[in-house]
Amino acid sequence: MKDIVLQRLKEDTSRYISGEVLSEMLGVSRTAIWKYINELKKDGYEIESSSKKGYKLISASDIINATEIGYNLGTRILAKKIEYFGVIDSTNNYAKQAAAEGCGDGTVIVAESQTSGRGRLGRAWDSAGKKGIWLSVVLRPSIAPEDIHLITLAASVAVVKAVKQATGIETGIKWPNDVVLGGKKVCGILTEMSSEMERVNFLVLGIGINVNHETEDFPEGLRDTAVSLASYADKNLDGAVCKTPFNRAYIIRTLLEELEKIYIKINEGSTEEIVEEWKKYSVTLGNEVRVTIKNNQYTGIARDITEDGKLIVSCSDGITREVISGEIMVRGILGYV
Amino acid sequence: MKDIVLQRLKEDTSRYISGEVLSEMLGVSRTAIWKYINELKKDGYEIESSSKKGYKLISASDIINATEIGYNLGTRILAKKIEYFGVIDSTNNYAKQAAAEGCGDGTVIVAESQTSGRGRLGRAWDSAGKKGIWLSVVLRPSIAPEDIHLITLAASVAVVKAVKQATGIETGIKWPNDVVLGGKKVCGILTEMSSEMERVNFLVLGIGINVNHETEDFPEGLRDTAVSLASYADKNLDGAVCKTPFNRAYIIRTLLEELEKIYIKINEGSTEEIVEEWKKYSVTLGNEVRVTIKNNQYTGIARDITEDGKLIVSCSDGITREVISGEIMVRGILGYV
Repeated sequence: MKDIVLQRLKEDTSRYISGEVLSEMLGVSRTAIWKYINELKKDGYEIESSSKKGYKLISASDIINATEIGYNLGTRILAKKIEYFGVIDSTNNYAKQAAAEGCGDGTVIVAESQTSGRGRLGRAWDSAGKKGIWLSVVLRPSIAPEDIHLITLAASVAVVKAVKQATGIETGIKWPNDVVLGGKKVCGILTEMSSEMERVNFLVLGIGINVNHETEDFPEGLRDTAVSLASYADKNLDGAVCKTPFNRAYIIRTLLEELEKIYIKINEGSTEEIVEEWKKYSVTLGNEVRVTIKNNQYTGIARDITEDGKLIVSCSDGITREVISGEIMVRGILGYV
Repeated sequence: MKDIVLQRLKEDTSRYISGEVLSEMLGVSRTAIWKYINELKKDGYEIESSSKKGYKLISASDIINATEIGYNLGTRILAKKIEYFGVIDSTNNYAKQAAAEGCGDGTVIVAESQTSGRGRLGRAWDSAGKKGIWLSVVLRPSIAPEDIHLITLAASVAVVKAVKQATGIETGIKWPNDVVLGGKKVCGILTEMSSEMERVNFLVLGIGINVNHETEDFPEGLRDTAVSLASYADKNLDGAVCKTPFNRAYIIRTLLEELEKIYIKINEGSTEEIVEEWKKYSVTLGNEVRVTIKNNQYTGIARDITEDGKLIVSCSDGITREVISGEIMVRGILGYV
């Protein structure tokens, strides 16, 4: 019923529909209509109410609730359940809790803003409202804990492909899974896992994408290292290539579809393709990097990644090292001078 | 106050102390005494109550609540908090929840019996009452997720050393961390972890030891593969070496002390010693094993373990493989025919 009210409002956003008309159309009381309108507001829709004229939908273009994301979504495994929050502490925290309580494979948690969004290694991640995509996906992959790195690589590949498809913008991947644009970070991925030694209980893939931020939307300290898709496009791309602001629900749909393709491959064990694609988008391979391994710093050239996702670095001390995690800086990208 | 009541009861377990005497000694009402007695019963103490004669402690020798475990416990990091349950679904589940909610490093959960105790790979683990040790320890080690295997090896070393010290019985370790005795399993360890790609949020070490079971206490299907310390000692060892039944609180204390020593080494990065000790107790090295790697089965000889805890197997097809997890069978031990 709420969806029908929404459809009516969407049909003509140029003028008001009175509560009376709506209540006659749907055969319910005006109080019921008022309730549906309030629920829609809670779902993120901006609706102008006037006691004389009725209701009018202000902006439906950039809503990312379950209905909007689910509309025409072409996934079979992911997003069978989508939970939307106006504000949440952290979509990853909520997703971990939901996963521990047994939620289904592919459950999606999405929020307009996070009060304590986190990046890797516990770093704060700025996730203010209505400009970005902050979502977490609960996965229950049938892989061993030691292969989990592949999923974090795979997620970055899915983001690059989805962003290209939905906006036309070509991004790159900084090992292991930062998505970068013009030398700045446009997307971060935080993978968390609950596992036994020999099997994964669940995995939470937290994806944060800066979409429609203006440069001024970023805290001053971040402006040199963070960028949004729209601000990059406005400065660097022809308006004919891509029109800003971007429709976030469309990017999310595309992302979930790309993620699902890759997730299926991972569960089937076809991981070579993921590694190959990751290499294609990499901004790390061939470049000078600084890596920190067990508190020791090395400089070297990133040569390749192994089939299970470790970075191979020819260090300047002559030794070739495989890096599985920890910090890596790529010269010229994200602060390596 | 409850502890004073307990002390009085312990001082003479041959006769009753009346509620009146206790209430005068402590300067509280008889109702208060009655309440303390009930709390002590809940803590696992068997107390005979007689309205005429008063209270008498039946059995204090085999209680494993926080007071008994904490008594003279020589740890600084582990067991600052001990939670005791008469019955629980699974100490690991409870510990994971407590850890997610932020409980301290070294928190110990111990139970008299578990209704859904689990072994590795989701297998049921028989943990009926008052015969075994079922406990979980929450750890927050400062190591990378890929080094977590060392902790699971280390835990088995701690069990072997503690069992030797507390009971005199020499056990062995089947890779990665089953503790075996006379070719049967006497202790299983289930390590669960919550992690990001680059750091461990927390780790739960679940340890189950069969202590005072008679053969008949095991379900029929398990009698060929499971054994308890006491039933082994009764059949194979001189009563002078060790007296059964064993005091479980003493074994737990010794175990926590051994675990702490090893935990400190791990946090300091001194892991070579752990690997060396593991090798010393291993029943796997040098023996024929059957390993399953990504659905393929291989037979071979277990040669060594790597410094980060992988098993090195010279397989019969001429290839030497490193096994990090998954199933392994050692000829003659636990069902490998």
